[in-house]
Amino acid sequence: MRTTTGLALLAPGGTLQPSTIERRDLRPDDLAVRVTWCGVCRTDLHAVQDASSGPLVPGHEFVGVVSEVGTQVTRFAIGDTVAVGNIVDSCGTCASCRAGDEQFCAEFPTLTYGGRDRVDGSTTSGAYAGEYVVREGFAYALPAGMDPAGAAPLMCAGVTVFEPLRRFGVGAGDRVGVVGLGGLGHLAVKFARAMGAEVSVFTTSQAKVEDARSLGVEDVVVSRDADAMAAVAGRFDVVLDTASAKHDLSPYLRSLRADGTLCVLGIPDRYEADPMALMQGFKRLTASGSGGRPRTREMLDFAAAHGISADVEVVTPAEITTAFERLARGDVRWRFVLDTASLAQA
Amino acid sequence: MRTTTGLALLAPGGTLQPSTIERRDLRPDDLAVRVTWCGVCRTDLHAVQDASSGPLVPGHEFVGVVSEVGTQVTRFAIGDTVAVGNIVDSCGTCASCRAGDEQFCAEFPTLTYGGRDRVDGSTTSGAYAGEYVVREGFAYALPAGMDPAGAAPLMCAGVTVFEPLRRFGVGAGDRVGVVGLGGLGHLAVKFARAMGAEVSVFTTSQAKVEDARSLGVEDVVVSRDADAMAAVAGRFDVVLDTASAKHDLSPYLRSLRADGTLCVLGIPDRYEADPMALMQGFKRLTASGSGGRPRTREMLDFAAAHGISADVEVVTPAEITTAFERLARGDVRWRFVLDTASLAQA
Repeated sequence: MRTTTGLALLAPGGTLQPSTIERRDLRPDDLAVRVTWCGVCRTDLHAVQDASSGPLVPGHEFVGVVSEVGTQVTRFAIGDTVAVGNIVDSCGTCASCRAGDEQFCAEFPTLTYGGRDRVDGSTTSGAYAGEYVVREGFAYALPAGMDPAGAAPLMCAGVTVFEPLRRFGVGAGDRVGVVGLGGLGHLAVKFARAMGAEVSVFTTSQAKVEDARSLGVEDVVVSRDADAMAAVAGRFDVVLDTASAKHDLSPYLRSLRADGTLCVLGIPDRYEADPMALMQGFKRLTASGSGGRPRTREMLDFAAAHGISADVEVVTPAEITTAFERLARGDVRWRFVLDTASLAQA
Repeated sequence: MRTTTGLALLAPGGTLQPSTIERRDLRPDDLAVRVTWCGVCRTDLHAVQDASSGPLVPGHEFVGVVSEVGTQVTRFAIGDTVAVGNIVDSCGTCASCRAGDEQFCAEFPTLTYGGRDRVDGSTTSGAYAGEYVVREGFAYALPAGMDPAGAAPLMCAGVTVFEPLRRFGVGAGDRVGVVGLGGLGHLAVKFARAMGAEVSVFTTSQAKVEDARSLGVEDVVVSRDADAMAAVAGRFDVVLDTASAKHDLSPYLRSLRADGTLCVLGIPDRYEADPMALMQGFKRLTASGSGGRPRTREMLDFAAAHGISADVEVVTPAEITTAFERLARGDVRWRFVLDTASLAQA
């Protein structure tokens, strides 16, 4: 075993504290990555809040530098900058894995933290840490010239919005609605605009209207305004719903054109909708999260080609609890990124 | 005004009673139809149970004989046998109408009963009656040789299941699941089998296993059997859910392959599903009801070509209350059809 410093929840109800954590010794196809930037995802907040046991180290969208390679690694060398997302392994043989949809692996993909290592059965610990050890097949070369802090959130938030936009063939002239302006939402706006779509943002908050405009969105719909919602009925080809709390999906279904698709990216306890909102026009409700390896590669290349990265606010390990508190109340424009360099030196 | 005898609910809480009801005088493009057979749909039962005022005459899937034609009718002549479904008019100009999807008419289609006539604003009365007056554009010539009693339920139950099967391109080798064996379900089995699909039936009731087998279905899944449900996870391309009561959709979403579609035909208050059941494989939830005119025509021709009609139990007007009681407890194989000839003579 090797060790590094991670921000760990040691027992339920506590806060993240710098702790010495273990990493596996490198297997032949492993990389050791010195983590430099790790995105702070809402999932991390929930994982810490909901933890029933420790230790738990969050972090599943990160960038770092290869510091050591296993004996059979072929695609990376020491010093390469790599990015890693929320999937670090999968069975590789089921139909979904063969199709490059590792997120749907029949044996469930191994998650970057809180997952079960497929070799030794241990529980994975995340990248709020100085080092991460990962199979080379689940690491991605960061495109040249991409800001590494702004790239880290692409690896979960980015691919989560890019995957459905591509899956539904969004392109020039399509009308895309984005529900919620946050880590996912602001990247959905950027990607959909870069694909040529007309993008509208739904927000519950009048305060975010100007935020949306600053991202180049002309059309902002305050979803609590019934008249404004009625005005967009039947308008959108695709709506991506990034709101994380449970809410009625019907208003967004009504905003779709016939045959349109509402794709929900948040994971409340249940999805609920009015049957008539789906029935009027064979509208489709689906859900998505993360993406497979080919799509992740495509997303990074697309982001590089279009100059897309996350708008981030950098926080130090000492600020993580404050960042969680601010994240819980939506006080971030648009993603916290943890500067983990000090953990690597610890 | 002209009059006929209809089975009418005169006041909330009552039962259907033979009553003299009005029909409009024929407009230039109208047909008067002597109703001979009218299917008894569960919607009729609910309409009567839920009525807040009378009079209400149910009936929206019927066959009859043209007895009189308006001055500009071109497609039908006196003596023709016609079939009519649950839509008797629409705006004709919106995008959905132009696409032949009158069921999604932007101004809402005029329903066969309880609808609002687009010319005079009156409320439509249904076909539990001796006569119905309908625009010729919403009447369909019954294919030669088709049993008229068994054809009546095709006009609502039939097109409601045929439309999504066609919309989703069901064909040879596809695996189709049908949830619930009743008026809709048994027609879904017949149509899907005729399209070449492998059809399975989900039922909550062990008692219906033999019923399903009698329709030629080899694979019957008792949905309360967790092992049986687990065994079909990931199996189906399309599942048509005909169950009318509110229920968790998640088990049927799990039975879909990746990219598969669950189409719900029942209309409970809400649809509810587990987000993960949708998310694992971009599964799609949609809903459908009825169909447009081109699809209805196609359905009748397909049914004639494949010898498909509903399995019906004929009831007289005097038996309608008993039939409703039996329908409420699912005691019918598989659709009641009202013999309305005596009403025409009344």
